[in-house]
Amino acid sequence: MEKDFKYSALLDIYSGLLTEKQVEALDYYYNKDYSLAEISELMNITRQGVRDFIKRGESALDEAEEKLGLRRRFMRLAKIGRLANEIRQKSLIDSEVYALADNIINEIDSIQNGEI
Amino acid sequence: MEKDFKYSALLDIYSGLLTEKQVEALDYYYNKDYSLAEISELMNITRQGVRDFIKRGESALDEAEEKLGLRRRFMRLAKIGRLANEIRQKSLIDSEVYALADNIINEIDSIQNGEI
Repeated sequence: MEKDFKYSALLDIYSGLLTEKQVEALDYYYNKDYSLAEISELMNITRQGVRDFIKRGESALDEAEEKLGLRRRFMRLAKIGRLANEIRQKSLIDSEVYALADNIINEIDSIQNGEI
Repeated sequence: MEKDFKYSALLDIYSGLLTEKQVEALDYYYNKDYSLAEISELMNITRQGVRDFIKRGESALDEAEEKLGLRRRFMRLAKIGRLANEIRQKSLIDSEVYALADNIINEIDSIQNGEI
């Protein structure tokens, strides 16, 4: 089973559409980088059980992205962050513009971290 | 039946989770601002049928936002747009920074319009 870390990003967006157990298994696997054996102990289920939660969770995440395409939209935020960073670099002597660009970068961080 | 235009924003994000008929009825009602009578003619169904598609579509949209909360995340984009606009105002004589801020505003437009 190969790890594709796009699922970490998809989980951040779509976890509300999955079951609790799927979210738990995927979070251990992709965000905390545990092995199947470790997750099996943590969740007190067989390795095959862990594998099933992960596989079904991945399918649900792929299906959600297929239908809604929100990861593609959020990915553009990274580009906005790079542009704001360039503005910040070019505005070291203009504290007002520097602060505004800084503010944009903080907003993007909040959106990406799912804060409200 | 009162129109709550938050559904226009929710439809933009979650239409992939609805049926085609629900999307069609909601699009006529919220985006094109047609009356139930007009939609009834356009879709060739009774007014009650239109009302049902709209009500069920609205419930599905509310449920999706309840589970995923993505509208709240997208709404922060508007704030980033205002910040970038302020930078643009303050950089009328710095064409490089002006262009970068302009670029941010265009990116935000694209994300909000669902372009990829």
